[in-house]
Amino acid sequence: MKLLRYGEPGNEKPGLLSNDGQLRDISNIVRDIDCNWMRTDGFDNLLREINSDIEKFPIVSQEKLRIAAPMARPGNIIAIGLNYEDHAREAGMDIPDEPVIFCKAPSSFSGPFDPIILPPGSRKTDWEVELGIVIGRDAKFISSKERALEYIFGYCIVNDVSERALQLEHGPTWIKGKSAQSFCPTGPWLVTKDEIQDPNNLFLKTTVNNVVRQNGSSKTMIFDVAHIVWYCSQFMVLEAGDLIATGTPPGVGMGYNPPVYLSKGDIVELEIEGLGVQKQMII
Amino acid sequence: MKLLRYGEPGNEKPGLLSNDGQLRDISNIVRDIDCNWMRTDGFDNLLREINSDIEKFPIVSQEKLRIAAPMARPGNIIAIGLNYEDHAREAGMDIPDEPVIFCKAPSSFSGPFDPIILPPGSRKTDWEVELGIVIGRDAKFISSKERALEYIFGYCIVNDVSERALQLEHGPTWIKGKSAQSFCPTGPWLVTKDEIQDPNNLFLKTTVNNVVRQNGSSKTMIFDVAHIVWYCSQFMVLEAGDLIATGTPPGVGMGYNPPVYLSKGDIVELEIEGLGVQKQMII
Repeated sequence: MKLLRYGEPGNEKPGLLSNDGQLRDISNIVRDIDCNWMRTDGFDNLLREINSDIEKFPIVSQEKLRIAAPMARPGNIIAIGLNYEDHAREAGMDIPDEPVIFCKAPSSFSGPFDPIILPPGSRKTDWEVELGIVIGRDAKFISSKERALEYIFGYCIVNDVSERALQLEHGPTWIKGKSAQSFCPTGPWLVTKDEIQDPNNLFLKTTVNNVVRQNGSSKTMIFDVAHIVWYCSQFMVLEAGDLIATGTPPGVGMGYNPPVYLSKGDIVELEIEGLGVQKQMII
Repeated sequence: MKLLRYGEPGNEKPGLLSNDGQLRDISNIVRDIDCNWMRTDGFDNLLREINSDIEKFPIVSQEKLRIAAPMARPGNIIAIGLNYEDHAREAGMDIPDEPVIFCKAPSSFSGPFDPIILPPGSRKTDWEVELGIVIGRDAKFISSKERALEYIFGYCIVNDVSERALQLEHGPTWIKGKSAQSFCPTGPWLVTKDEIQDPNNLFLKTTVNNVVRQNGSSKTMIFDVAHIVWYCSQFMVLEAGDLIATGTPPGVGMGYNPPVYLSKGDIVELEIEGLGVQKQMII
């Protein structure tokens, strides 16, 4: 199922995109797509209701509608660094022996079509298309990689927007360049895991002003989806609704010679197979 | 004012500690000590009601009462690394030119007397007494250090519990050793800033099984409270209720020769001048 949220910031309503491309309002039985809903049997209930009579969910006109991030703001936004071998090389960093974990401030979370706001003085703001994992059940110390899949609710696109000067020229941690307001466009859809046959074999693409910049596949990830979820759960409690961005393939602006960074007025478009398209203007 | 929360996990009620040491229930006018309450005029309203008639807030017996963290779980837990010159030296790291920012997973947040749960196989779990800053108003790109103080709600004790093997032996970021469940005991009180004359001159102490291990003062911080809040706001939106742990003075277990780490049954007690005492058993 393709879940989404729509409406103005702070007043989002939950919806779904049906197979015929129509957006339907599900707010009569879903308060929000958030940790509480995921922790209870909210999804099973929704599925039952849809199967019994989809017409009870009114069709919403998509014209001029803001599509918001497809779930409520996560309690934690985890990101995996250098998880594509080619990207580690273009960034001039070693291939990691185990996943590199960093965080984005949860206040960076934003909608898939919301503008990206350049921080004052920014000269090195960069794109990173990433497969996002959304956790569906609280998890700690998951016993095996195989069992990790049970804790996943679904997948979405994340743009792990990164200001490279702030990330790399201000001390050893990366959080400073990953956390500004609007630096985590997410969506348009939260696609439940049953719809994604193999998350480790999805095509990912970024264009900037219609020029293709990233063009890869999640099959070149160093650590796969199950490994990442299993691994993260060894260090912290993962909670329903948490978002894990799994790393980016080659083709970030920093990797070009000379580097290419985002400027006011640029349009970034990100696509992942089965997860839709998101698009931001730089302001 | 000394604000606090009490009761079992998930059912905490807000309260205050009056000057005569009595705990009073303030839940008749405060739903919770959280970002929504801080963002509105909740505190001014509480102050007015207390000044008009404190007896409208019932006294609660403190016997066998669980004192919880003094505010709702923060949207973000930021920590400043190596902010005491002596501690940077004992950790064998360079004195930073600017604050080192890292995050603790918000799911690590816990009460001041809740036990610390050793991760499976942990051999290097360590203590860090820290002055915690609680943000009172959303803030981004604060224009000066002087203005930063306006965005502070108050102060509390934080134990920035750290598993050194997970922190330092698993890649470049520290989050892995800082984020386990129970690794962020906070409280007992959230002391409003008007009660703390100079946050940059507070005595801090840790004892483990009654042996004094840390004994310092926030006057030896490299970056002071105003600097930290101003600085963090340049990289991310700080939100009401966010917690910033400002670094630890010397005397962590890792700094002893040979190192001293926490084992099952140990009792850690942390104190900061004006902010009370917290105590955890290791389990």
